[in-house]
Amino acid sequence: MSATERPGDEIAHGMWATVVRDGQDDYVAVEEPLEIRVDGAALAVTMRTPGHDEELALGFLYGEGLIDGPRPVGLTADFAVNTIEVEGPLARDPGARRFYTTSSCGVCGKGALEEVAVHAEPAGAGPVVERDLLAALPDGLRQPTFERTGGLHATGLFDATGELLVVREDVGRHNAMDKVVGRALLDGRLPLAGHILCVSGRLSFELVQKAAVAGAPILVGVGAPSSLAVNLAADRGMTLGGFAGSGRVNIYTGAERVRGG
Amino acid sequence: MSATERPGDEIAHGMWATVVRDGQDDYVAVEEPLEIRVDGAALAVTMRTPGHDEELALGFLYGEGLIDGPRPVGLTADFAVNTIEVEGPLARDPGARRFYTTSSCGVCGKGALEEVAVHAEPAGAGPVVERDLLAALPDGLRQPTFERTGGLHATGLFDATGELLVVREDVGRHNAMDKVVGRALLDGRLPLAGHILCVSGRLSFELVQKAAVAGAPILVGVGAPSSLAVNLAADRGMTLGGFAGSGRVNIYTGAERVRGG
Repeated sequence: MSATERPGDEIAHGMWATVVRDGQDDYVAVEEPLEIRVDGAALAVTMRTPGHDEELALGFLYGEGLIDGPRPVGLTADFAVNTIEVEGPLARDPGARRFYTTSSCGVCGKGALEEVAVHAEPAGAGPVVERDLLAALPDGLRQPTFERTGGLHATGLFDATGELLVVREDVGRHNAMDKVVGRALLDGRLPLAGHILCVSGRLSFELVQKAAVAGAPILVGVGAPSSLAVNLAADRGMTLGGFAGSGRVNIYTGAERVRGG
Repeated sequence: MSATERPGDEIAHGMWATVVRDGQDDYVAVEEPLEIRVDGAALAVTMRTPGHDEELALGFLYGEGLIDGPRPVGLTADFAVNTIEVEGPLARDPGARRFYTTSSCGVCGKGALEEVAVHAEPAGAGPVVERDLLAALPDGLRQPTFERTGGLHATGLFDATGELLVVREDVGRHNAMDKVVGRALLDGRLPLAGHILCVSGRLSFELVQKAAVAGAPILVGVGAPSSLAVNLAADRGMTLGGFAGSGRVNIYTGAERVRGG
């Protein structure tokens, strides 16, 4: 991104494709598998939209507790066969488990019910923001490939003044979140204390968990939260807002960070 | 469902929960993990909305080629710990692989890129339907729990005249599809030749694959298809419609089954 571009200006190569529908050309979002390999062995397969694959891999590994900020890892992408190779050492042994994730999958690789949760520190105190600022975040969530295809989720990282810092799009909502977290890792922004994450869709358990692991105190979505999303946000002391947009937002947890009616 | 009820009248116990938001009671869709176990060993964990779990398990197993129509399997659900036990024998050995699926996960458990695809026979020739009928399907997709929570996907099974036969809701779009396929299995309707499936969201690879394995010749969605969804539908000879609703539908593949402008 050059100095004159805004976040969201760029559309990565391969994010959309042309198809014929009803006898005329039309655009669709690209969905392809990406295999994340560690030291030569397959760790995860995710159905994702190409573009920012390194960020996706880093965000995924961070969300699973397999890498942390300071430790460098090597990444080698081979787009001809849709693989990305990670050279460790990792922060912990992934074990014999392999992860399989798809368009909206995020707790993949957990071997039993009690393993669904990944450790996350409780969210820090700040920031306190105006309700109107949270309600307006979806308007600031620029989605250039969605505008072309109508077929992508997005996650945006905002600062406490509501300025958009990063936006990423993907057919999978968890992938868009992983890409943003991976970008934040590369930019030295983790943990995301003082930041706000906004997603274009519904708020599932997996998205709250990824935001919690990344240290974000506030998560807002355009869609509805699930019961488990509300429970996890409350447990981690996060602020969770749903149905954001058109000047409104519902606050389910962490109302102490929200000012104004 | 009694004789006087229509499909979609029933809301299963535990599909929605009450939370407090902005100081008042509100409803959210329930999301909880379900572990599918085969002969005592964990096979899959899916993040799902409770209700119709037996259908979900059957549909999932059918979509993965692990059961077929005639072969009976025993199911024992334990809702206290969110598990469902399947007593084989299965149609094939699932191998050492375990599946992990979440709110919108559907190709989980595939160990490498070339394993993402599940075998499905090409779709049969019929039926041929009016474009207006396909465009009107979302209006017929009754979603009682969505109306309460705003947080659920739905899949509906329709006959060739557009009559709704079954509708199921879930936080995961692939789960809603699995539940409908499981119900169709119990009702002796598989393969779904002559039927139409309609989903409330976007059309991913995984949803087209599940519809293909179930033998449905026509799949319509309210949202956009992905590139891989279009490719797979074309490969299997299926009719794929997207952006359905408000009197319109885009036809991406299999236009020979669609009559009228």
